[in-house]
Amino acid sequence: MRNIRILTSGESHGEALYGIIEGIPAGLKLSNSDFEKDSIRRRSGIGRSDRVKIESDKVEIKSGMSWNSTTGAPITIRIPNIIRHDSRLKALECEDADVKVKPLTRPRPGHADFVGSKKFEIKDIREIIERASARETAARCALGSIAKKFLDEFGLRIISRVLAIADIGFTYKCLFPTSEDLDKKWDSFITETEKVYKNKKTKLRDLRKKLTEKGDTCGGAFQVIAHKMPIGLGTYTQADGRLDAILAKAVMSIPSVKAFSMGAALEKSFKYGSSYIDEFKSSKGRISRKSNNAGGIEGGISNGEPLLIRGFVKPVPTLASPGKTIDMETGKQVDTFYENADYWVVESIGVIAESTIALILMDELLSKYGGNSMDEIHRHFNA
Amino acid sequence: MRNIRILTSGESHGEALYGIIEGIPAGLKLSNSDFEKDSIRRRSGIGRSDRVKIESDKVEIKSGMSWNSTTGAPITIRIPNIIRHDSRLKALECEDADVKVKPLTRPRPGHADFVGSKKFEIKDIREIIERASARETAARCALGSIAKKFLDEFGLRIISRVLAIADIGFTYKCLFPTSEDLDKKWDSFITETEKVYKNKKTKLRDLRKKLTEKGDTCGGAFQVIAHKMPIGLGTYTQADGRLDAILAKAVMSIPSVKAFSMGAALEKSFKYGSSYIDEFKSSKGRISRKSNNAGGIEGGISNGEPLLIRGFVKPVPTLASPGKTIDMETGKQVDTFYENADYWVVESIGVIAESTIALILMDELLSKYGGNSMDEIHRHFNA
Amino acid sequence: MRNIRILTSGESHGEALYGIIEGIPAGLKLSNSDFEKDSIRRRSGIGRSDRVKIESDKVEIKSGMSWNSTTGAPITIRIPNIIRHDSRLKALECEDADVKVKPLTRPRPGHADFVGSKKFEIKDIREIIERASARETAARCALGSIAKKFLDEFGLRIISRVLAIADIGFTYKCLFPTSEDLDKKWDSFITETEKVYKNKKTKLRDLRKKLTEKGDTCGGAFQVIAHKMPIGLGTYTQADGRLDAILAKAVMSIPSVKAFSMGAALEKSFKYGSSYIDEFKSSKGRISRKSNNAGGIEGGISNGEPLLIRGFVKPVPTLASPGKTIDMETGKQVDTFYENADYWVVESIGVIAESTIALILMDELLSKYGGNSMDEIHRHFNA
Amino acid sequence: MRNIRILTSGESHGEALYGIIEGIPAGLKLSNSDFEKDSIRRRSGIGRSDRVKIESDKVEIKSGMSWNSTTGAPITIRIPNIIRHDSRLKALECEDADVKVKPLTRPRPGHADFVGSKKFEIKDIREIIERASARETAARCALGSIAKKFLDEFGLRIISRVLAIADIGFTYKCLFPTSEDLDKKWDSFITETEKVYKNKKTKLRDLRKKLTEKGDTCGGAFQVIAHKMPIGLGTYTQADGRLDAILAKAVMSIPSVKAFSMGAALEKSFKYGSSYIDEFKSSKGRISRKSNNAGGIEGGISNGEPLLIRGFVKPVPTLASPGKTIDMETGKQVDTFYENADYWVVESIGVIAESTIALILMDELLSKYGGNSMDEIHRHFNA
Repeated sequence: MRNIRILTSGESHGEALYGIIEGIPAGLKLSNSDFEKDSIRRRSGIGRSDRVKIESDKVEIKSGMSWNSTTGAPITIRIPNIIRHDSRLKALECEDADVKVKPLTRPRPGHADFVGSKKFEIKDIREIIERASARETAARCALGSIAKKFLDEFGLRIISRVLAIADIGFTYKCLFPTSEDLDKKWDSFITETEKVYKNKKTKLRDLRKKLTEKGDTCGGAFQVIAHKMPIGLGTYTQADGRLDAILAKAVMSIPSVKAFSMGAALEKSFKYGSSYIDEFKSSKGRISRKSNNAGGIEGGISNGEPLLIRGFVKPVPTLASPGKTIDMETGKQVDTFYENADYWVVESIGVIAESTIALILMDELLSKYGGNSMDEIHRHFNA
Repeated sequence: MRNIRILTSGESHGEALYGIIEGIPAGLKLSNSDFEKDSIRRRSGIGRSDRVKIESDKVEIKSGMSWNSTTGAPITIRIPNIIRHDSRLKALECEDADVKVKPLTRPRPGHADFVGSKKFEIKDIREIIERASARETAARCALGSIAKKFLDEFGLRIISRVLAIADIGFTYKCLFPTSEDLDKKWDSFITETEKVYKNKKTKLRDLRKKLTEKGDTCGGAFQVIAHKMPIGLGTYTQADGRLDAILAKAVMSIPSVKAFSMGAALEKSFKYGSSYIDEFKSSKGRISRKSNNAGGIEGGISNGEPLLIRGFVKPVPTLASPGKTIDMETGKQVDTFYENADYWVVESIGVIAESTIALILMDELLSKYGGNSMDEIHRHFNA
Repeated sequence: MRNIRILTSGESHGEALYGIIEGIPAGLKLSNSDFEKDSIRRRSGIGRSDRVKIESDKVEIKSGMSWNSTTGAPITIRIPNIIRHDSRLKALECEDADVKVKPLTRPRPGHADFVGSKKFEIKDIREIIERASARETAARCALGSIAKKFLDEFGLRIISRVLAIADIGFTYKCLFPTSEDLDKKWDSFITETEKVYKNKKTKLRDLRKKLTEKGDTCGGAFQVIAHKMPIGLGTYTQADGRLDAILAKAVMSIPSVKAFSMGAALEKSFKYGSSYIDEFKSSKGRISRKSNNAGGIEGGISNGEPLLIRGFVKPVPTLASPGKTIDMETGKQVDTFYENADYWVVESIGVIAESTIALILMDELLSKYGGNSMDEIHRHFNA
Repeated sequence: MRNIRILTSGESHGEALYGIIEGIPAGLKLSNSDFEKDSIRRRSGIGRSDRVKIESDKVEIKSGMSWNSTTGAPITIRIPNIIRHDSRLKALECEDADVKVKPLTRPRPGHADFVGSKKFEIKDIREIIERASARETAARCALGSIAKKFLDEFGLRIISRVLAIADIGFTYKCLFPTSEDLDKKWDSFITETEKVYKNKKTKLRDLRKKLTEKGDTCGGAFQVIAHKMPIGLGTYTQADGRLDAILAKAVMSIPSVKAFSMGAALEKSFKYGSSYIDEFKSSKGRISRKSNNAGGIEGGISNGEPLLIRGFVKPVPTLASPGKTIDMETGKQVDTFYENADYWVVESIGVIAESTIALILMDELLSKYGGNSMDEIHRHFNA
């Protein structure tokens, strides 16, 4: 990102999560409701653990606004943790801390336990887990809500939908919609999205029950769609400016997302060019497409068709009966420890992906149109 | 990338392709053969067009070395084009150029034609094609050869293999090898890779013939494996530091790569956690894994197991009978123009992906170990 | 900076100042006293206003540590404001805020009032002042304390001293010390620094009195010295890697610093090469210098001699009788408004400059030596 | 820089200097004359050595243009060297090069000889000199010519003038002009600049003669003025966004520039606030200033008044009778070697500073106004 800079911080059981975002233009109106909706959506999902019910994840704004309007100054968000550990709350308090806690040295596969402990040369895995936890995404999600509000002012709409949870497939009328498809039927598109998920609720509850019994977890897949895309975001002039590459990084930076696909590429990579071409058509002077296999990006640049992004979510690696591991201190085989965890996180990750994508699109829009206040950006956008 | 900076430049039919790489340590030995092997591999592949036979892609070094050793100064590479167009060769020569060439205004789907023309407000699509062309990857590939030579000094090995070309599958003994698998049998792994491709040559030639007849093209899939990975590259502390996200961007920045997967995530996202866990084991004091579903990265950090990356390549969008498009000037439906093109590019893209991955790994290794000369980096690496 | 990333946030009368720093290695011990000393020094100085007495600027650590040791995770610092304004504290609370405060539209020269109001298209200058205020440096100073603690572990010492306040000159035995000068007499160097300032206290109090009477303010100059510099930080290979350029940016980014000089360059630019050369000498196998006109950097790279940096501080632009300005709304000439302000800020800015310099040196040291834990960096440093 | 990226490469006696610039919008007209003027100015100056007469420094464009117009693609510039050394021309040619050249191990003070040799662990100082040479600025100067042409389209004018060469002062009617001063009398300002230099030519030739006799060199000072500045470039919201800090880095990254000053700050730091205030005034609805002590930047943001930047140039460190140094191999005192060098470089550095400043201003203008073609940027600029 070139215009927007973000840092998040905070531990899973620290005092709070924090985020600072630099580069938000002045004059953007924000309200509590802009944050709440995504916060609730991020924590919902039938496969989530009990902790998400405890944490209310209320977003506090600590800087960058005057009343309900941004000032151009960096915005600080804070999300307090309800469940907290002393070691972080009392940082600095004990100058000669020589705290005797038996270090946890049995790494769980699929987590940062082993690698974090090695990288930072920290014996106690608890120190690693605290920041490596996906709880960090609460902060990113809140920052993404700001980006969504920004994009909303330019007509952009971003939505996610579940494609699969384990082997339960979610079927929609159209997997790769064109701009025309969505222009005509945006409302019914939203209705369908909600309805399809609703219809699967019983199956998902059954799945949860089954997973509880087996001490198992599962993965899934989701899609994010961005509609009303401006033409010309991203570039082919330098490799790292390609919008699809930038979006891949953003989505793959969400813990558990381990595969990414633009449009229909994944399936069509095993097929022929003739089945993949998105032919041009023209109606009322506007050039659009007959199909959207490319998923809204050609040559690394947005082409005005909806962005169609799919992410694939690995199964949650925290099993109730996780088997054996090696104690990093003794080198001996031992049992893995168990932390309360989610059964699956697919719905939530769709929401987080919306956020990371929204942040990228805001940044690209600022590159294309420039400007330091909402009014100025609108003037440029309309010029 | 933090330690290494790269810019490439040059057009498909300009005077040459160029690349500058800043941050290469001093004392790295380079020779012509380091570049030639990858250059030849990049241009080979049964599905490539005739142009790759014309362009010899000899890499010239223009700076940053004294005799055959790097000096720490930025390295310039140049790859001359054999086929060149006057408009670029004579840049600057005509102060009041008002060259009358009928602009090409019929965009081809699947290319940057339409979006580039819109973004840069350039009427003639030829101007767009020149830089948007995948020929740019020749420069990146050459820079990647430098990175590979660097990594080689620390024992890292990077290799790619074809997984599919259209519906022709390439089957290997082990799709997700562990470090133990490769430690024992690296040579037989290489032999197998070559043999599997060789055995498919007749089928691929038949496919090419079929595609020629139909005026069609196809896509495919490949895998890149990086063996002897140090533990601790990448980080979970900030979202954009995750190694899998960084690698996703690098691989997705290659034209035609439209999907990306780490390890076995793609398949396992529809499965259960119990089938995905890479259990720890210990032998002779070294902790390793029983499987490598994660593909060598946990929590955004390399875990010492081989990196297992798959890329999915969309079908080449340049069909011989490409159907209709819209003239951007008149708004009327017209025939798409045809440029000589590849039938498929899967083998080449595997090689380019090796290069983009090598550049990332070099950069991460420099972050982890620091140092400005090969000797210093070795001292840090061994400390 | 390549290894360290920083964002600060917060307004002058907001809830608090915040800062997040990413990239601090694990295992660095921090305590309250590491922050307190600089915080007190930053707020002291005979020319400071009354507000600095009200604000205690106690630094709170909100993340990135476990007890008193860093974990590699981003560190969040918070500095609460005692004096706060509602508009920021209640951000988001009023969805339809249409707060009727008469906007302040009379810009003061020498402040961001005019430019901020124009850039962000915000009518009320109060919104601009809040973030443009030099109070932001409290956050940077706290982050700099972390960097100083880091550098301290590798023997680096950073200190500032006042050179002039208005026309009151501060004379020291040696303005451009060599490493040998400081190696021998570090303690007496510190003693001298304190003593020289102490001896001027009466003069400074008289100056303050005079300025109060006249409603005037003044500027000054300071020097920062970094001793025990490693050789090899910075580079000439690319223009933006030169250490002197990077340091110039860091010091010039402090509000009120408007001129910068390395070593004796400023004076010697009007002289001859023969008077500027720092001849090499050798004693006990160590190569050092007979003088330090260069101020510790040659060819953009640290040469092992002390860094000698001077900053020049413009007079505080907030006069008690500030004369006329133009109302940005009416275009008419009006009186400038007055805010309680400092008489001069030279001592404080020296301390802030230490911080910004420490952050740069930490970053460069991490580039040179790499590593993610203090132990690892020490191993590389000693290799 | 956020929108523009630059890498330069090439050695002093290599095949050529290169530069790639990414982010130049499409549709900018460039001609040979845009480069020639600055190239000639950079090489002129009475104090320059003989080499500048040999090197013609003809700029070649290798990519990024079609005929005489930019295409949005990265631009490659090449400046051939006339005087070349084999070691670089034949890079890669000798795989087992074990070239026996007696390494040069006697470092010259004031150059990168010692630090470069230490940093990159290269014994032969010749390898260091090649890239550390100020010849690199030829490439930056050429890239700056592109930026100047861009700025010219938006009315910006950048000019440098000599303030001092050794103790020869250059006096102008107004050292700190306001926008009004320059609006009225731009032509006479240019005429004055040329005339003042012309009038000193005899004195400068005498100085050169004197320096030749003594084997000595000298330094000096220059000023760069940027007129017709847009309001609102730069920011105070984050420390590293301040325009004065960014400009300080750009100017200090020029070899030999060792001090930097904005406006009248240097002198006024020893004075009172009342003498420094740039009062607002209004005429015909436009708000401007009665003076320009601030040098065109307040709160890190351009205020519409001319940028007034001064740089101070250290004496050329290459003396004809340079005295003693230490052989890095033997540790013994030896004579320094002498390379043909300039007597002073002040005029040239003024031109290079124009270039580095132009690049920054182009980048900031792109941040403020966005856009990918000259037409689009004009639309935004005028909106």
